[in-house]
Amino acid sequence: MRNAATPAILAILLAGCATTEATEVASAPAAPVSAASVGEKDAPDTMRWLYGSGEAAGASIQAWRQLADYAIAVSRQRKVPQSIPLGLPDVAGGIATPSCVAADGKMKPFAAVFDVDETVLLNTGYEYWQAYSGKPYVPEEWEQWANGGAGIAAPVPGAVTGLRRLREAGIAVIFNTNRNSDTAAGTAAAIEAAGAGPAVHLDNLFLRGDDAMGGRKDGRRATISAKYCVIAMAGDNLGDFADAFNDPALGVQERRALVARGEYAQLWGNGWFLIPNSAYGAWQKGTLDDVFPPESRWMPAEKTDAPAIMEKSK
Amino acid sequence: MRNAATPAILAILLAGCATTEATEVASAPAAPVSAASVGEKDAPDTMRWLYGSGEAAGASIQAWRQLADYAIAVSRQRKVPQSIPLGLPDVAGGIATPSCVAADGKMKPFAAVFDVDETVLLNTGYEYWQAYSGKPYVPEEWEQWANGGAGIAAPVPGAVTGLRRLREAGIAVIFNTNRNSDTAAGTAAAIEAAGAGPAVHLDNLFLRGDDAMGGRKDGRRATISAKYCVIAMAGDNLGDFADAFNDPALGVQERRALVARGEYAQLWGNGWFLIPNSAYGAWQKGTLDDVFPPESRWMPAEKTDAPAIMEKSK
Repeated sequence: MRNAATPAILAILLAGCATTEATEVASAPAAPVSAASVGEKDAPDTMRWLYGSGEAAGASIQAWRQLADYAIAVSRQRKVPQSIPLGLPDVAGGIATPSCVAADGKMKPFAAVFDVDETVLLNTGYEYWQAYSGKPYVPEEWEQWANGGAGIAAPVPGAVTGLRRLREAGIAVIFNTNRNSDTAAGTAAAIEAAGAGPAVHLDNLFLRGDDAMGGRKDGRRATISAKYCVIAMAGDNLGDFADAFNDPALGVQERRALVARGEYAQLWGNGWFLIPNSAYGAWQKGTLDDVFPPESRWMPAEKTDAPAIMEKSK
Repeated sequence: MRNAATPAILAILLAGCATTEATEVASAPAAPVSAASVGEKDAPDTMRWLYGSGEAAGASIQAWRQLADYAIAVSRQRKVPQSIPLGLPDVAGGIATPSCVAADGKMKPFAAVFDVDETVLLNTGYEYWQAYSGKPYVPEEWEQWANGGAGIAAPVPGAVTGLRRLREAGIAVIFNTNRNSDTAAGTAAAIEAAGAGPAVHLDNLFLRGDDAMGGRKDGRRATISAKYCVIAMAGDNLGDFADAFNDPALGVQERRALVARGEYAQLWGNGWFLIPNSAYGAWQKGTLDDVFPPESRWMPAEKTDAPAIMEKSK
């Protein structure tokens, strides 16, 4: 939709800055701001959409429904099931689609593999703190949240119902997260407190540090697929599907185009399920020129004022 | 996902402001900025996600697949089909689920109803101009884009395939947009240039101004349902499903909770299909306190510095 009430995102953010800048110049270091006044500040649009909008709630309910419908239907097929691609088979760093038949000739049990943060859990606590404090990502603070967020982190809308339906259909639920492995207990507690458990480290919960591949998840996917026939995956980041998508050599438009290429395009909603996360992710890069390629740009024909990107709206 | 590379959204935006602010203080009014330097500015995260990310492309491909799968399955059912709710039946301002049987006893033809902007078309041209110019929403500029954007506005990933599948299955494609009715020709041209046509005003294209309800779409939905059996709707805004969701009396959390209530929760992915749009929408309101209710908040236990929301990251 587009209607007359569309706010100017930059204008609002910059208007916010202007005031603050003045304060800072007048008294550096900045005086502590009272909790009341901070809470009354406009939330960033990235957080408004994800944590505050009915649109995001509808989108995630819909994606979780689609995933559960899909995986349950696949699990009931009579033919020998195929694993979905776990990585990009024809891109360096990807891995092939594993077999669903074990070495002993028996079928592997079905599983669906999930990222945790902003896929199963909403990290409102930590995101609130970031917006409240204005601080960048501080690993020690994130670690504290990962260990202690149980009971505060709510489930992503649709996740609890979706996971329950999968488990009732006999499909194993596996979590594959880039939280550090030393937060395994806190992460399991948060998943369980949100109604998305059980989660048991190295049984159905895999974390960064469980292998030597750091934040790359292909290795953990291979570990999972040695035991399970993976019929669905969900995540908010392309790295939740294949590490190759997050190759730093990919430009903004190359990365986007790769996702929409025929062989990968046909996986979305069909084995791979994306939970929208506007708040953070590997996509947070790019200039205006990167995000808007030349053929996508436009300017009014009869603009009367020269472009002045930082001019305040009147 | 959450990984160690998570940028601090506010910190980046504010760092951007700081430089500019200094420039503005030094030379007001601001001197025009060259196109090259503006293009090298960081794009807002709201636009990076929607227009630049593979994640958004995957999410919209998946939602369009889900819609087409759903509507085609419903159209093949042997039982007398039911229209989906077009509005919220039990909320003031909503309308009831219309009958799929016409006055003459015959079945109405099937239709799926679509919002246009950021549901079928990506308004990269206008959004680029907003980010480039730093200007707020200017109705005259939007009108110019609505009239002249054909060939620049690309389709939302997944839309062209989804619409083709629906039409091949004999399901009518109807557009219901809040673009003004005097842009009907330009809007139809943009839809057709993007490969999503045909679109013919008052036949399968309805706009704001076609009735006396302004931007409220329930009336146009009623008009459409007088002729068609509507089996699916898609949009990026809750107003694309029911006007009642955009009641200004609803608080941020009330609006979100309404969407996830049992009777409406069951419609997402099941007749109602949400296309994620992080760039703009009726959800763009709310303070930190509105977006993060008390039970969702958290702070580190041993923070050594007082909250200072606008302190720059070191």
